[in-house]
Amino acid sequence: MTGPSIAVAVVDAETPGNVGTIARAMKNFGLSDLLLVDPPTLDPDGEAYGFAGRAREDILPDAREVSFDALVEGYHTVGCTAITNEDATSHVRYPFVTPAALAEELQAVDGSVCLVFGRESTGLTNAELARLDRVCAIPASDEYPVLNLGQAATVVLYELRRLTVAETQTPEIRDRAEPRAIEGLHDQFAEFLVALGHPEEKRPKTRRLWRRLLGRAHPTGREVRTLRGLFRRASDRMRE
Amino acid sequence: MTGPSIAVAVVDAETPGNVGTIARAMKNFGLSDLLLVDPPTLDPDGEAYGFAGRAREDILPDAREVSFDALVEGYHTVGCTAITNEDATSHVRYPFVTPAALAEELQAVDGSVCLVFGRESTGLTNAELARLDRVCAIPASDEYPVLNLGQAATVVLYELRRLTVAETQTPEIRDRAEPRAIEGLHDQFAEFLVALGHPEEKRPKTRRLWRRLLGRAHPTGREVRTLRGLFRRASDRMRE
Repeated sequence: MTGPSIAVAVVDAETPGNVGTIARAMKNFGLSDLLLVDPPTLDPDGEAYGFAGRAREDILPDAREVSFDALVEGYHTVGCTAITNEDATSHVRYPFVTPAALAEELQAVDGSVCLVFGRESTGLTNAELARLDRVCAIPASDEYPVLNLGQAATVVLYELRRLTVAETQTPEIRDRAEPRAIEGLHDQFAEFLVALGHPEEKRPKTRRLWRRLLGRAHPTGREVRTLRGLFRRASDRMRE
Repeated sequence: MTGPSIAVAVVDAETPGNVGTIARAMKNFGLSDLLLVDPPTLDPDGEAYGFAGRAREDILPDAREVSFDALVEGYHTVGCTAITNEDATSHVRYPFVTPAALAEELQAVDGSVCLVFGRESTGLTNAELARLDRVCAIPASDEYPVLNLGQAATVVLYELRRLTVAETQTPEIRDRAEPRAIEGLHDQFAEFLVALGHPEEKRPKTRRLWRRLLGRAHPTGREVRTLRGLFRRASDRMRE
């Protein structure tokens, strides 16, 4: 199996049952690394284990509690949401990718990817999504596009199965930059906006635009180093 | 919308919660006709309604109790199962079709189709499957291919969405920047390198790096305008 290693993160899950459902879907589709941000208590006699099927034997007990920062710093992050922006006036939830297109896109990526799902009631917040690299939305009925958390995760993992389960022909592998290096470039870009005197109220929006662009491009280590150097030197020059 | 009308049947469901989950997935993917064979009691204050999301308003109260015979007599039936036969020595669970191929196949069908799902613990029996027209199996991990009932139905309905949902909430991204605008950004980037004092012998290589990066990202018009503006202003500032 080539392609990326794929983890699943659940942020602030409200009900243990959904965590169990997601663990089961992970086992059905060949994934194992479950990360939990602010999870509910997972009682071995409770719903999480009850809903997990055979994932109760490994994925659920092996799940790790992590911080949201650790996701952003450690992975190419894909935030899953039913609520998208429809055009480029906001980059919090736009551009987005469907699960099928995401599977295509990740095929060419070598590195650590994390699919991030939000709380049952309200999903991922704008503040959370703004920090993630890529946005994924499941096409569903315009009238009622909001899937249950466990069902949404199941659909996304089902679409990614060709990366995690089946044998595929060797896909192209690029030397995607480390998430930490990409975050460094994002920091440098922020500094560049400051040095440029970009209006303060516009900076978050411009940074999100840049994040979404890089989120689609999967820059190599060399690309990240080069751009980071350019922005650093430009910032220095403008400050002189 | 062309193609068949599609109903969903659940045979001998053991837990009301799964019936609710299936009703929700139906609403998410534009279906409405839910048929129940030997259902458990669906208490309006219980799990079926609790798991149904907005399907509690229509699909669940409108569900009809029917006999297995009525399914066989009234519909082109598709039995969904994780357990298949591997070759033509038995035709109970063979040949089977994947949900994606089923969507293709049903596109050409005009008439009433019913997707039939079985009980949580053991799925559809051989005797039941033998009476259905078609067998559908979700490709999943060889080690653990058995999805939870509600999750399996969600995946199948998701794949059939192109037959059932006229309009999804995720329109295609249409506003890719014009090639001319992207070239303008490339020119501006070149000027930025000059203003920055980037060594002349390195410029062509750095420009190519930038071109390859944007070539993968397919920037929107707004992204191109924003970045072009930033590079222009940075160049001006460095020249001052």
